[in-house]
Amino acid sequence: MILVNGESRHSIEITDRGFQYGDGLFETIEIRDGHPVFLQQHFFRLQKGCKILGIPFPDIQLLTEEAYQLIQNSSHAVLKLIITRGTGGRGYRQSDKINPTRVLSLYPRPDYPNCYKDEGINARFCHHRLGHNPVLAGLKHMNRLEQILARAEWYDNRFQEGLMLDIKDRVIEGTMSNLFLVRDGAMYTPKLDQCGVAGIIRGIILEAAKHQFKIEQTRLDRQDVVSADELFVTNSVIGLWPIKRLGQHRFKIGAVTRKVIAWLEDYKNRDLPVCSV
Amino acid sequence: MILVNGESRHSIEITDRGFQYGDGLFETIEIRDGHPVFLQQHFFRLQKGCKILGIPFPDIQLLTEEAYQLIQNSSHAVLKLIITRGTGGRGYRQSDKINPTRVLSLYPRPDYPNCYKDEGINARFCHHRLGHNPVLAGLKHMNRLEQILARAEWYDNRFQEGLMLDIKDRVIEGTMSNLFLVRDGAMYTPKLDQCGVAGIIRGIILEAAKHQFKIEQTRLDRQDVVSADELFVTNSVIGLWPIKRLGQHRFKIGAVTRKVIAWLEDYKNRDLPVCSV
Repeated sequence: MILVNGESRHSIEITDRGFQYGDGLFETIEIRDGHPVFLQQHFFRLQKGCKILGIPFPDIQLLTEEAYQLIQNSSHAVLKLIITRGTGGRGYRQSDKINPTRVLSLYPRPDYPNCYKDEGINARFCHHRLGHNPVLAGLKHMNRLEQILARAEWYDNRFQEGLMLDIKDRVIEGTMSNLFLVRDGAMYTPKLDQCGVAGIIRGIILEAAKHQFKIEQTRLDRQDVVSADELFVTNSVIGLWPIKRLGQHRFKIGAVTRKVIAWLEDYKNRDLPVCSV
Repeated sequence: MILVNGESRHSIEITDRGFQYGDGLFETIEIRDGHPVFLQQHFFRLQKGCKILGIPFPDIQLLTEEAYQLIQNSSHAVLKLIITRGTGGRGYRQSDKINPTRVLSLYPRPDYPNCYKDEGINARFCHHRLGHNPVLAGLKHMNRLEQILARAEWYDNRFQEGLMLDIKDRVIEGTMSNLFLVRDGAMYTPKLDQCGVAGIIRGIILEAAKHQFKIEQTRLDRQDVVSADELFVTNSVIGLWPIKRLGQHRFKIGAVTRKVIAWLEDYKNRDLPVCSV
């Protein structure tokens, strides 16, 4: 089921700027036990993105109601929430009055094997690079050709994720995930001030870890990554996947990774609906 | 009227990757006396873009027929042709079998005052920068947030175009046009190997000029641009607009610009349909 501005539909106007130019933002939200996990954090990121792109943020109560309407019969699923600048405006110039389009779609939860989570995944480095744009960096906007080209580099199931470098040879993220590495008990994750998507799970880990570990957002190159003690990737749907192999390099699921897995579970269990509907 | 895969429709599937990720390409084509101008060149660029993005190029005869079907009652208009990777594929990963979506829409020709063409326009420098991505550079793909943010920098009609710099402070193009400058009788236009859209009119001018002028694709900074003898911007809908003012700097419509205007007119008149339908 899909809701477009509150109506059940399967299509969007051709003139919608989301279609014409990728002029919008999205969130991919885990539905767990009928509850959208970290909904408040997703709304917060979306709100921040809308502010940067100059798209008026829809009423949060309305968005929440529509989300719960969509997931009412789903225990476990994935909710995709898209906000575009709406229709209108000739060419790149936007209308004087912007009426954003909101699209909420429900997808089945992907059936990733448990071993990805429990034993770790195989990853590779992608050839396609992330360009730099400090204004768009961090946002989950709808301009995603870079990720698509990187994800199209492999078709088989030997790899579960590809790590992307930027045009300066720094490792930034996975095609669909954020990257963390552990060295000597400290955690590091790439700085996302030039490119990359600042994931919700990444934010949760940064917040949770700062009281207990040394954790740093920093510049990382390929050598930093392959020489790490532990490596893992995160996103809202997969949660956390340890990396067990990256090219010829093998990694163990260490104590820090296990601690973060436990935190995330705890945080998810403690996450409460943002409002009752 | 809009044709989606040959059917008259006004909407596109929500699951179309053009909407989800801006996963596609487009062409904006001038319709003049019922004829799509430089159609062959537009198809060629689209074909090149499809190859780079890994989207199968639709049958060219079919595209041509649909274009003529759409414009049959229009003497002067703008035809927008979009090709997306179609629906399907979970997340960024594309389907094993790609069925591209083709969308042809007809728009009224914009009613720009004649003085833009005849007397020149006022331009400004935009603050928003173009990021670098050598693989996507030159393509008219559907990831256009950078142009949208630049075009949103001014609302009034004092300026008709904004010039965009890249993250290295080089001047690249207008928000919707390519830039040319003339100095000492020679023509220069920015290199588009890191970012920018390689416009059809730009390509025509580069080809036409090389037998008669010194013309060079090069790196240009702000100072190069403001110190030029003549400046103009081009695209398929506007044709050529001289710049008469850029910030505090004023420019005349010189002999080279006038010559290029005459060429373009001549080329458009000599452009013939790519096939009879």
